Amino acid sequence: MAEIIRSLQNAQIKAAVKLRDRRGRSQQGRTIVDGLREIRRALLMGFPVETIYVLPDAFSGPEAESFDEVLQQHPDLNIQHVTRDVMAKLAFGERVEGAVAIVPIPSNSLQQVTLPEAPLIVVIEQVEKPGNVGAILRTMDAVGADLLISADGRTDLFNPNAIRASLGTIFSTPIVDATSEETIAWLKDNAIDTFAARVDGSVAYTSVDMRRATALVLGSEAHGLSQKWHQDHVQNIHLPMNGIADSLNVSTTAAVLLYEALRQRT
Amino acid sequence: MAEIIRSLQNAQIKAAVKLRDRRGRSQQGRTIVDGLREIRRALLMGFPVETIYVLPDAFSGPEAESFDEVLQQHPDLNIQHVTRDVMAKLAFGERVEGAVAIVPIPSNSLQQVTLPEAPLIVVIEQVEKPGNVGAILRTMDAVGADLLISADGRTDLFNPNAIRASLGTIFSTPIVDATSEETIAWLKDNAIDTFAARVDGSVAYTSVDMRRATALVLGSEAHGLSQKWHQDHVQNIHLPMNGIADSLNVSTTAAVLLYEALRQRT
Repeated sequence: MAEIIRSLQNAQIKAAVKLRDRRGRSQQGRTIVDGLREIRRALLMGFPVETIYVLPDAFSGPEAESFDEVLQQHPDLNIQHVTRDVMAKLAFGERVEGAVAIVPIPSNSLQQVTLPEAPLIVVIEQVEKPGNVGAILRTMDAVGADLLISADGRTDLFNPNAIRASLGTIFSTPIVDATSEETIAWLKDNAIDTFAARVDGSVAYTSVDMRRATALVLGSEAHGLSQKWHQDHVQNIHLPMNGIADSLNVSTTAAVLLYEALRQRT
Repeated sequence: MAEIIRSLQNAQIKAAVKLRDRRGRSQQGRTIVDGLREIRRALLMGFPVETIYVLPDAFSGPEAESFDEVLQQHPDLNIQHVTRDVMAKLAFGERVEGAVAIVPIPSNSLQQVTLPEAPLIVVIEQVEKPGNVGAILRTMDAVGADLLISADGRTDLFNPNAIRASLGTIFSTPIVDATSEETIAWLKDNAIDTFAARVDGSVAYTSVDMRRATALVLGSEAHGLSQKWHQDHVQNIHLPMNGIADSLNVSTTAAVLLYEALRQRT
């Protein structure tokens, strides 16, 4: 461990702060992780954490204890102590918890994916809100889903807000970026039963069989799924809506569908 | 319709702005509704809207059209035109959509509740985040649930952010404030099958019968359910968690449980 970084002008601090912007993340191929729990889960899942910036003695409580334990299990980590001012800059816009981590953004393509038998896959098309991506990842972790495909994505998946909303479960689920066309072709080539959630879907989600290889496809909250998904090998399903509203939040829809898949598979 | 209100010092505008604070809402027994869709749904459900403040010619698009239609169906409404400055003050902290409404906060007690046969009830204990309350109401509307009980509530249910997060479905579901003790006694007296969601619940939520009168009980995200709910007539249930995380968002848990109840009842 080197000396404490005290200067806001330090080159690596300036580079880290740029990761708050999509442009900086894209240029550097890295992102920034807030939160002890989130960093701990990245380490737990073997994510190649590059640097952890720590404000010494800033954290306490049970989460801090687990955090310290995990740090001790990774003696080769690059841990860099910083002053309170530097941490405030790094943890910008967030509650300062005393640590942020820099991790590379994985870039996986559909061609690289290896699937278990009868995988459970979620496809989100043109989803814009990092909070929704994070919430979906949290449920995917809970049910043990195998892959998230972001089709024609409108947000970068490793946005710090998505990482935070996922509570770090983003590190436990394989994630791929692709176009909708590529995704549709790949699902067909791999003979994956594909169910598209649409308000006007012809079949209730409870009457389809999700026990074989299954993909659940969800559109953006504002526009729903694009026309591209009207394909012979894609079945449209709906959740019953018995009230005055005509749609559910995309992360709520994902949760209901994923737990139905788990129920059928148990 | 009287003349346009132009002054930020106007007494009714000053009173309306105070409804942004919990204290103002509590003192006046009213709340403020943002959003054309939300106001339209309040009117649709016959909620006694007191005043609608409108910025003339500010809105357009399909939602504006439905809104105008609903206004025409309520010719006796008190509609008050305001200037852009006044609207900006009223719609503070929100995207200005051109209208806000003032509605009384209903105060119902458990004693006043009338239930259908085999009601589906949600109890949330000590839930703090208006966004979670709104999201739960949105799913309750979708499945046609009958009653929300806020037990030992930490937020006022008619917080404008809860109304907004519910997309106005808050006006379609009966809502009651009570203590946890009152709620527990009332559920027992009314012979309602009561299922408490706990991370360590002994039974999977899919193996209990939710077809009779059913209450689903959820704790706060930070602390879970209090010890008060350890009762002979309360069964603890859990959602399977197969990943690295140990809990789901309370509104996600509510959605999975509510749709399971609907599935069993269909």
